[in-house]
Amino acid sequence: MITTIAFDADDTLWHNERIFLSTKDKFTALLSGFHDKIYIERHLDATETKNIKHFGYGVKGFTLSMIETACELTEGRITGDKIKDIIAFAKDMLASPIEVLDGVEDTIKSLSAEYRLICITKGDLLDQETKLARSGLGEYFDALEIVPRKVPETYENILKRHDLSKNEFVMVGNSLRSDILPVIEIGAKAVFIPYESEWFHEAVSAEELQGKIFTTLENIGKLRDWIQTQ
Amino acid sequence: MITTIAFDADDTLWHNERIFLSTKDKFTALLSGFHDKIYIERHLDATETKNIKHFGYGVKGFTLSMIETACELTEGRITGDKIKDIIAFAKDMLASPIEVLDGVEDTIKSLSAEYRLICITKGDLLDQETKLARSGLGEYFDALEIVPRKVPETYENILKRHDLSKNEFVMVGNSLRSDILPVIEIGAKAVFIPYESEWFHEAVSAEELQGKIFTTLENIGKLRDWIQTQ
Repeated sequence: MITTIAFDADDTLWHNERIFLSTKDKFTALLSGFHDKIYIERHLDATETKNIKHFGYGVKGFTLSMIETACELTEGRITGDKIKDIIAFAKDMLASPIEVLDGVEDTIKSLSAEYRLICITKGDLLDQETKLARSGLGEYFDALEIVPRKVPETYENILKRHDLSKNEFVMVGNSLRSDILPVIEIGAKAVFIPYESEWFHEAVSAEELQGKIFTTLENIGKLRDWIQTQ
Repeated sequence: MITTIAFDADDTLWHNERIFLSTKDKFTALLSGFHDKIYIERHLDATETKNIKHFGYGVKGFTLSMIETACELTEGRITGDKIKDIIAFAKDMLASPIEVLDGVEDTIKSLSAEYRLICITKGDLLDQETKLARSGLGEYFDALEIVPRKVPETYENILKRHDLSKNEFVMVGNSLRSDILPVIEIGAKAVFIPYESEWFHEAVSAEELQGKIFTTLENIGKLRDWIQTQ
């Protein structure tokens, strides 16, 4: 029945949130002379949320939000050298090694022999493309779809573009907000595989989950068996 | 013979370089207490070129390059308030009205009745997508392809994805480097429509053009007649 398995990328195939969290630590350390860590983090989160409509998802927008936060929280007293440090954080993030999650390579390799695999990810175009290449997983995927947001229409368009019915498609990811809810809304299947931490922007309330039917697996190693029962 | 016409977006369908040039003017004015205009522009161009491998094309990467340039050219003495001004420039660029070029709407509308139209553009995902929507031209296009770079492989992949042969495809754009040379390299047709100014990054030497066969049209209004002679 299922012919096509789509995977989210960041924190589904490889660690990503870790890179953001460690950059946030460096950022709060940089501003530690001005404010305490929690206060800086809250302000950065609020700036990021406010800026998503301008900058979208990804490292570049996050970096512009760090710079904006640094200017605001220091009332303009931040020095150019510290701003340059923040830009260097961005370049480090973009160049950081891809750590594929446990079990991913075996699962993807084995599934690719029998199913069409698509990677569907938000973020910056160049960055997401080079991450898939650097991960060593690129050869197993039939398509890479980098999208500005993940809403039901996004998935409908992808199904249409690949000439797929909703019955033959399953989406696998670590974000209820982006990978699961919009997919079950269009009547396709979704498998939730939680990551070790959740990005605040992706959090979903208990109400939103009420009555929603999807599968949760503990890790990607369980995916192959699940697929075969479908 | 031709079934599909692909268009570059920035400076082919709507004005774009103007927005960058006017932002550069604001940027050099912001730093006028430190250096003269030409010197600042040269440094910004060099930073942008160096950063494309990190940040790719688009407003966000350009903005990070402006900020980096501001820090370097002031030896770190730039103030946070001025950095905030630069971030505001970015938000203004992303929100600036789309000015469709003369003749574009009539031509696109009329061609869309007979041909499949694809828009192929570099830049930031969210930005390019909202620009096509804001331009009012979105409904005439069958597909939007936002790509991290325009090399022969990019066009080969697009032809493959849309199940097109190179004989039925023509690419129309204002950049010899991105819209013309890679397309004729894969054996498809390309139509060059020069814009009022050329972005330095897209410049091509006379040697590179030697022996290259493509069509140059004065403006997009001539495109329909040309297509019909093919």
